[in-house]
Amino acid sequence: MLVQYDNLLNKLKSILKERGFSESDSYNSAKIFTDNSLDGVYSHGYMRFLTVISYIDKGYIDVEKKATKISGFNAFECFDGNLGMGNLNATICMDRAISLSEKFGIGIVSLKNTNHWMRGGTYGWQAANKGFIGICFSNTIKNMPAWGGVDKKLGNNPLVIAVPRSNGNHVVLDAAMSLFSYGKIEEYRKKGLKLPFCGGYDSNGNLTDIPEEVEKTERILPAGYWKGSSISILLDLVASVLSGGNSVTKLSENNIENALSQIFIAINPKCIEKEVDIDSIIDEVLRDIKSSKTIKENSEILYPGERVVKTREYNTKNGIPVIDDYWEKICNL
Amino acid sequence: MLVQYDNLLNKLKSILKERGFSESDSYNSAKIFTDNSLDGVYSHGYMRFLTVISYIDKGYIDVEKKATKISGFNAFECFDGNLGMGNLNATICMDRAISLSEKFGIGIVSLKNTNHWMRGGTYGWQAANKGFIGICFSNTIKNMPAWGGVDKKLGNNPLVIAVPRSNGNHVVLDAAMSLFSYGKIEEYRKKGLKLPFCGGYDSNGNLTDIPEEVEKTERILPAGYWKGSSISILLDLVASVLSGGNSVTKLSENNIENALSQIFIAINPKCIEKEVDIDSIIDEVLRDIKSSKTIKENSEILYPGERVVKTREYNTKNGIPVIDDYWEKICNL
Repeated sequence: MLVQYDNLLNKLKSILKERGFSESDSYNSAKIFTDNSLDGVYSHGYMRFLTVISYIDKGYIDVEKKATKISGFNAFECFDGNLGMGNLNATICMDRAISLSEKFGIGIVSLKNTNHWMRGGTYGWQAANKGFIGICFSNTIKNMPAWGGVDKKLGNNPLVIAVPRSNGNHVVLDAAMSLFSYGKIEEYRKKGLKLPFCGGYDSNGNLTDIPEEVEKTERILPAGYWKGSSISILLDLVASVLSGGNSVTKLSENNIENALSQIFIAINPKCIEKEVDIDSIIDEVLRDIKSSKTIKENSEILYPGERVVKTREYNTKNGIPVIDDYWEKICNL
Repeated sequence: MLVQYDNLLNKLKSILKERGFSESDSYNSAKIFTDNSLDGVYSHGYMRFLTVISYIDKGYIDVEKKATKISGFNAFECFDGNLGMGNLNATICMDRAISLSEKFGIGIVSLKNTNHWMRGGTYGWQAANKGFIGICFSNTIKNMPAWGGVDKKLGNNPLVIAVPRSNGNHVVLDAAMSLFSYGKIEEYRKKGLKLPFCGGYDSNGNLTDIPEEVEKTERILPAGYWKGSSISILLDLVASVLSGGNSVTKLSENNIENALSQIFIAINPKCIEKEVDIDSIIDEVLRDIKSSKTIKENSEILYPGERVVKTREYNTKNGIPVIDDYWEKICNL
């Protein structure tokens, strides 16, 4: 079914308020879930809401706590998330990184003891909407073997890089370090489809494109094999070292995905020479990429973030598509 | 054959000096080529030296110029490489980023109009050797199609992330955004081997693991398909926007790989709370990863940068293996 933006926002907001969040926190957090759904990132929008509520009910997410600064040295500040709501904490930290970059040209905020930020792209868009380059990443619970290994040792640690454009159609990368997420693999299984590429190993230790097989072994493939594995390790080390918080290894000990470590970097592109026309640099690159001869006839090369804008426009006009079952469960909370 | 470290260093240094570099620039640049060879990154060590000399002789690399600061705003400075030697320029800029991060906690230097930095990892090690986290990336000439496209539009833009350890065995990622470099593909062809995974497309538009086929079509595969393609685009945009320099699109116009754009970020991990033991966070993660059950019996999971240390130790003891033909050509310069 289709749900209008305001309906979804108000519904989620009222549930969060009932759980004990303040008026403004309920609104801000619900808005992120709703915006993610509007943008087509359903898996980290309304579809994740039930899990988050269960985390609140189990006490993993503290509705009364938010990220607070624990130390700072000029353009680098360390925050403690105090196990508050992940999307609120991440918003606070990216906001702070932006303020630091206004003052210093670049700013970095490390965050420990936080909860899942839902969709990392949210905070890239947040920076870009204010005219800043945003770079952020998070660690996750162990969900992927290291390259060459069998057992889960790495998170699929998402990396976000956002570059702003004056027209608001920012270029935003939001990529986890596994080739496919478990959510995506489940989606293919439910549709009765094979994965478009091998996404993990089967029980015989062979690479497979059959979703069920990968789900059985829980051996998902890093994006670019050894490359995604290595990037995942570095993102985790940077996040845990600079926050003094949990690494993937540490946070996975109790098998609950919380007390994560994250990094938020903002860079002020207005620091460079005045005569540089940033928009024209970006436009030229995107125009060139989009002029590619495509593999499939009548197809189009999309730049990172372009699908988000298209989906946002479509869903704004038509309503946000939600799976009936999920919506019913949310309404019954 | 095997060449001793000092022999290689002195040989390269004397050639650079003959080409017009100052005493110290000749030494510093030759040392980077030699260190890269010692570390086993031959493709961006002595093997690349002949190409670099030809770039000097053609006037693409200016032996008398080096990177100079053109603007700055606290922790963010912009440098112009003035088409000087790429590895000297990159060293200057990472050094400056480190100084900025000592003062501000984090520092960023953008660099335009520079030449190929050879091995990106060099500047990650440079930061880590001084106890800093180093992040740097470069754009390159077009050498890879965007995901879904046929013609070369993207660089394989390498990304480097280095995390320091007190014992000097830093964790250093140095990954280009193509699954295999052309150099690596050539290596497999010369050995008569197939690639370990499909690394590009053949003339019929099918993915192939046959090196010759990929070389024929020049359609190399981004690491992680759409993911490597997207990361490549963002690294290029950040580098060109923040330096005001050439994008991949722009620098590829004259079909010569120079006047590149690069970013150097250093972060001071000593800014966080005193009681955090960075080494023990890293050690715990690496120990856990290395304790993986491995796919191949009696194999070992290496963390990013570990092979470099092993090769460095081996080559220090035994000499640096060089291909006779290359060495002869270098000696005849």
